[in-house]
Amino acid sequence: MESNFTNRDIISITDFTREEILYLCEKGMDMHNLEMHGRRNDLSDKLRTRALSSMFYEPSTRTRTSFNTAARELGMQVDGFSGTEGTAVMKKETIRDTVMMMGANHFDVIAMRHPLDGSLQWAADVADIPVINGGDGKNEHPTQSLLDLLTLYRFNDKKLDGLNIGFGGDLSHGRTIKSLSLALSHFKNITIRWAAEDFLGMPKDLEGLLESRGVKVIREESVRDVMKGIDFYYMTRPQLERMQNVTQGEIMEMMKKYRIDLEKVEGFDVKVMHPLPVNSEIAEIDYLVYFSPVQGFFPQAEFGIFARKALLYEMLKHDEYIQFSGKLADDLEFGNNRLKRATREETKKGMFIDKIIRGTVIDHMGKGTAQMIAADLGLEDKGYDSIPAYLSENDKSFLKTNLRELTERELKKIAKISPDPTISYIEDGKVADKFVYLLCKNDNCVTGVVNEDVPSKFYNDEGTIRCRYCRKPYDITNPKVSDKEREGFISLLPKKIEQIRP
Amino acid sequence: MESNFTNRDIISITDFTREEILYLCEKGMDMHNLEMHGRRNDLSDKLRTRALSSMFYEPSTRTRTSFNTAARELGMQVDGFSGTEGTAVMKKETIRDTVMMMGANHFDVIAMRHPLDGSLQWAADVADIPVINGGDGKNEHPTQSLLDLLTLYRFNDKKLDGLNIGFGGDLSHGRTIKSLSLALSHFKNITIRWAAEDFLGMPKDLEGLLESRGVKVIREESVRDVMKGIDFYYMTRPQLERMQNVTQGEIMEMMKKYRIDLEKVEGFDVKVMHPLPVNSEIAEIDYLVYFSPVQGFFPQAEFGIFARKALLYEMLKHDEYIQFSGKLADDLEFGNNRLKRATREETKKGMFIDKIIRGTVIDHMGKGTAQMIAADLGLEDKGYDSIPAYLSENDKSFLKTNLRELTERELKKIAKISPDPTISYIEDGKVADKFVYLLCKNDNCVTGVVNEDVPSKFYNDEGTIRCRYCRKPYDITNPKVSDKEREGFISLLPKKIEQIRP
Amino acid sequence: MESNFTNRDIISITDFTREEILYLCEKGMDMHNLEMHGRRNDLSDKLRTRALSSMFYEPSTRTRTSFNTAARELGMQVDGFSGTEGTAVMKKETIRDTVMMMGANHFDVIAMRHPLDGSLQWAADVADIPVINGGDGKNEHPTQSLLDLLTLYRFNDKKLDGLNIGFGGDLSHGRTIKSLSLALSHFKNITIRWAAEDFLGMPKDLEGLLESRGVKVIREESVRDVMKGIDFYYMTRPQLERMQNVTQGEIMEMMKKYRIDLEKVEGFDVKVMHPLPVNSEIAEIDYLVYFSPVQGFFPQAEFGIFARKALLYEMLKHDEYIQFSGKLADDLEFGNNRLKRATREETKKGMFIDKIIRGTVIDHMGKGTAQMIAADLGLEDKGYDSIPAYLSENDKSFLKTNLRELTERELKKIAKISPDPTISYIEDGKVADKFVYLLCKNDNCVTGVVNEDVPSKFYNDEGTIRCRYCRKPYDITNPKVSDKEREGFISLLPKKIEQIRP
Repeated sequence: MESNFTNRDIISITDFTREEILYLCEKGMDMHNLEMHGRRNDLSDKLRTRALSSMFYEPSTRTRTSFNTAARELGMQVDGFSGTEGTAVMKKETIRDTVMMMGANHFDVIAMRHPLDGSLQWAADVADIPVINGGDGKNEHPTQSLLDLLTLYRFNDKKLDGLNIGFGGDLSHGRTIKSLSLALSHFKNITIRWAAEDFLGMPKDLEGLLESRGVKVIREESVRDVMKGIDFYYMTRPQLERMQNVTQGEIMEMMKKYRIDLEKVEGFDVKVMHPLPVNSEIAEIDYLVYFSPVQGFFPQAEFGIFARKALLYEMLKHDEYIQFSGKLADDLEFGNNRLKRATREETKKGMFIDKIIRGTVIDHMGKGTAQMIAADLGLEDKGYDSIPAYLSENDKSFLKTNLRELTERELKKIAKISPDPTISYIEDGKVADKFVYLLCKNDNCVTGVVNEDVPSKFYNDEGTIRCRYCRKPYDITNPKVSDKEREGFISLLPKKIEQIRP
Repeated sequence: MESNFTNRDIISITDFTREEILYLCEKGMDMHNLEMHGRRNDLSDKLRTRALSSMFYEPSTRTRTSFNTAARELGMQVDGFSGTEGTAVMKKETIRDTVMMMGANHFDVIAMRHPLDGSLQWAADVADIPVINGGDGKNEHPTQSLLDLLTLYRFNDKKLDGLNIGFGGDLSHGRTIKSLSLALSHFKNITIRWAAEDFLGMPKDLEGLLESRGVKVIREESVRDVMKGIDFYYMTRPQLERMQNVTQGEIMEMMKKYRIDLEKVEGFDVKVMHPLPVNSEIAEIDYLVYFSPVQGFFPQAEFGIFARKALLYEMLKHDEYIQFSGKLADDLEFGNNRLKRATREETKKGMFIDKIIRGTVIDHMGKGTAQMIAADLGLEDKGYDSIPAYLSENDKSFLKTNLRELTERELKKIAKISPDPTISYIEDGKVADKFVYLLCKNDNCVTGVVNEDVPSKFYNDEGTIRCRYCRKPYDITNPKVSDKEREGFISLLPKKIEQIRP
Repeated sequence: MESNFTNRDIISITDFTREEILYLCEKGMDMHNLEMHGRRNDLSDKLRTRALSSMFYEPSTRTRTSFNTAARELGMQVDGFSGTEGTAVMKKETIRDTVMMMGANHFDVIAMRHPLDGSLQWAADVADIPVINGGDGKNEHPTQSLLDLLTLYRFNDKKLDGLNIGFGGDLSHGRTIKSLSLALSHFKNITIRWAAEDFLGMPKDLEGLLESRGVKVIREESVRDVMKGIDFYYMTRPQLERMQNVTQGEIMEMMKKYRIDLEKVEGFDVKVMHPLPVNSEIAEIDYLVYFSPVQGFFPQAEFGIFARKALLYEMLKHDEYIQFSGKLADDLEFGNNRLKRATREETKKGMFIDKIIRGTVIDHMGKGTAQMIAADLGLEDKGYDSIPAYLSENDKSFLKTNLRELTERELKKIAKISPDPTISYIEDGKVADKFVYLLCKNDNCVTGVVNEDVPSKFYNDEGTIRCRYCRKPYDITNPKVSDKEREGFISLLPKKIEQIRP
């Protein structure tokens, strides 16, 4: 078994094949074995001149320290930031500028966390050096999944096939369980049992996906029912900060039934895992469980070192460093976000259209949005004509302006107010170009933050359009888009996101 | 002279014997001598693969940097945090979880500061690796004492016996002077002279303790009177943040008489020490003194390096690293906080008692507290019966409930509202168990923070009950506790806190 | 060509000669060449036991990381702080105490940023070890200039003579362009072209100074006009935080004419430079320019590494480390701020003067200031007589008090309320000493922060009195000071600021 992680971006655990997961588990076990034999520092000269850039836009102690330790034991140097308080200058600085600045500082690899979904794919796109996702918004955190898999591998006799695992706590709002269960779906005879309140339970679409891949998913009545059929119980913290209309008090009441205490584990030979930290007030794992033999979350924390140490070593064990290019690749300039529409039609005469000889028509927008857009683009202030209008017959707004043509920032502003607008550029009174502008509809996606100038980009995931950055599926809502036009658009999209650098 | 600091927790300077202090002073002088001979980096390969975890829950530059430098010159690596802004996730994370997480990260030693008294003893209890107290609340800061002692040792011809030292500034609110003078009480012919406002002066109990150990303590009228009889003047900063009902302006007026300026030191051959920083507004040491030959606080600051370098070296010079166990020791599970009371008595009939067949009576509480406790425990919300009552005849409240039995968190909540409650568990209408629950009464003690789950624990310090964590003496206020019961309780307590790890 | 940077403080680019700039450019090119030949780490053992103290009182990622990388590639260790949130104790701590504390921590060099102008010269004065200015307020940032010069040197065929450079953005509020153009004024045939709004344009006094040194400065109508005659276009960010009465919206409108977009650079073979970060909202450089061949700011960022690596290496390549003295030099005790006035005159009789036998008269102050000063010094509270008076005939206030004599802090407080006061000390009813107290009038100068106790000090810059710390020119406004007295004062001042340590 050989795999190549040199120069590879680590963005999502779903990018890993079964073989790659097993390979990294084996390499992680090598690191574990060194530790067990008093040889923690055997590799401490291996990467002595290599450096890790630790860019944590959101505060972190746990993940950051784990990366630091992994790097330290390989002899690497670490530098960076944690939280943006000490880096106020960055408030108006784009991710692109900061990542390039780090590249200019001769690091060999970046480990980064950022509050925006998809921000890490963007960082990987602009960086010359490989990037490891340490958490992008609510999206992905692949090294957490790797350490979970390594822990299971270790305590399941060095295999992942045939695993019986329980899930508890909050299966709905966190990314941990989703990522782990998708990774497990590569393996055979996996059974997942879970018990939780409905609104904290496993999402239907995830369950469907897992089952389509052969994973058995079973909902149980109680935690003890789950315990009966499993070897590992993966508990998670209710993600209060991502819930609405629920108080901490209400969650605490609910959790009484589902929190792990001595009573619930009594008589079972399981290992309780948890990504940590436990919420000390809810105490979804009772402190007495910390002292019982089922406690598996501290060993699991240590496996974070082994997993990350193996990963960094595999990424950097080659001898050459990557020189900073100082250039951005041309393919980052624009997105593939323009769904072409037919332009042979003449611009129809009508009550407004004859006013435009050269300009733009923005079409198929929701009621009341045309004026908002005119204001947001500042058309009047900038001296452009602007005719926002509403047609009651088809309940749609449109906007005409003699501004020709729109910048990407302007297009994004329009799409954020009214998704999937049809843009028509008019020359000599005729439509010269006509397209629907597509922008990811995920509110937290990095492409939607206008000032970041991340190109709106998509790929074709077996027929589903997905945002290149946050990977959310994209449904076109513009009613004028025909199936043929949609198919035409999809056919031009790349099939997958390539994570191996040239 | 040989001493063993391998695997030893450094929690309080009072844990050190005379011999240990002298041993560390000698080792500190070795470090000083290396520096003087241009050999600062002679040991820079000695601990090349060892790592210091620097966990500063409160901001620190001075102490943290000093530890870092000491570690650096021994070739050690350092990682950690300073202040919790960059680690927001930790707000609901227990000390236990964070310390274990650091242990999982393969550090060899922890240096930690935390705002709660006793938090460092707790960190030492849960950690597999040795812990150095860098300041726990207002409590202890043993390496500050060590560097003070080393400075005195150096400038007093390599001895501490016979020292004449003056104290000034604030002898009452800080820990520096208390710790230093207690450490000096191990030595012969120590004379302490001091001058300060009454409320900033040496506390009576400290003075008594020092005198009982043979230290001469003399209060003088003025700073110049102090200067007459001493070789070292240890000045400290008025701890405004720990005073009430006094304004900065008032302190500045008072300090005019006591601050160190050129006039006060003129003609004296003393060394002025100060733990730094000086408050630049009060200027308890005038800036002109900085340029005079009496200035001794900057050399003293450098001795912090030598003291800490010696300490770290002594702790880690053995070859083996400690593997992370991933387990918590069983003896951390519960405290020794239940003062057993006689249970042979039947539950007396009375107006309320016949209602309880199985449940709990909480007794001997202050007026009005029973209802507060019932509310705080949420008895009603959770569906338990709850009868809070007040007996005017003995002015005590009690609470009956059919909840059986109370968790440690519940017991702590009760004791925080009404100290030393008597708890009776009822089975079949009879008292099955009856005890007074003891919880340290120091408001800032780590055991009182319910969510931390630190066991309430005590030890027997020559007849005085002390909290294992903050070490404050404990007086039982429950009037029903007999001398015999108290003696019985004390007899079960450990005699001292063991700081050497197994 | 040989130059000596050992033990030299790096405070201002204006302290460097033409030869020194060229020397550092050559050394920077050596570092660049190592990188180009895959030898980034050739020097990684050279300074293995040396340490950089990174003291960033203001948050920084860019400059700090660049210093860190430079240090790392030389094998140095780095420690310090960024922002003062994690170091709250420092709020009342003087720069002097903190710098000395860092010195006590065995660093070999300090890189520091601080919000007060002149703070870095002060840090250099008190430190035993050399200090590099990483930005003092709005004042100086010499390593930014060095990296700019190195970038120009590299891309201008290894010479700086004959350079044609354009400036844009904000020439008025930032320090970058001022420092760079002054440094370029050492070289021959320099032409500067610029285009900007009036209030963002090149300050008249700077233009005059440059022209007096032979630099050709040409204002152009438009950015494209500038582009015609240049090889490098140095763009800068509008320093909104330093402007008043202008909104971001207004700036964005103005900048449309001056921001760099593809249209403005089309057809020109220039390199666009920028100190970064770009303001992502104003986008003074359009994102499409990032992908065009004119983009030169990311390579420029990397040259920050080469410049700083060369500088650190030149400063520290000697073998000996500097021992911490623990002492402050005597010449830091007081300033040279007392302009002596004639004292032979008897104290004139008058309505107030006969009241003072021994005391102080403060004279020649603005209307209404005498009472403010009496209050600010707290004369009454402290039990001193105080006679604030106003003479309508010459519209001046004066203050008499029997306090004799004033401390430096008191003198500073007076001068901050009423600049250039005449101080007369009275003994036996006669004037014993009479002087004007001079304190830098720059509101942001470190000497004006009373609690810092930085001596008010001046030097004679070819007839101009300048503050030693912020270097702003000093005009004496006290009308009683004669030309002769002024000349007498100047003649005693040092001619320049010596940056080479003894």
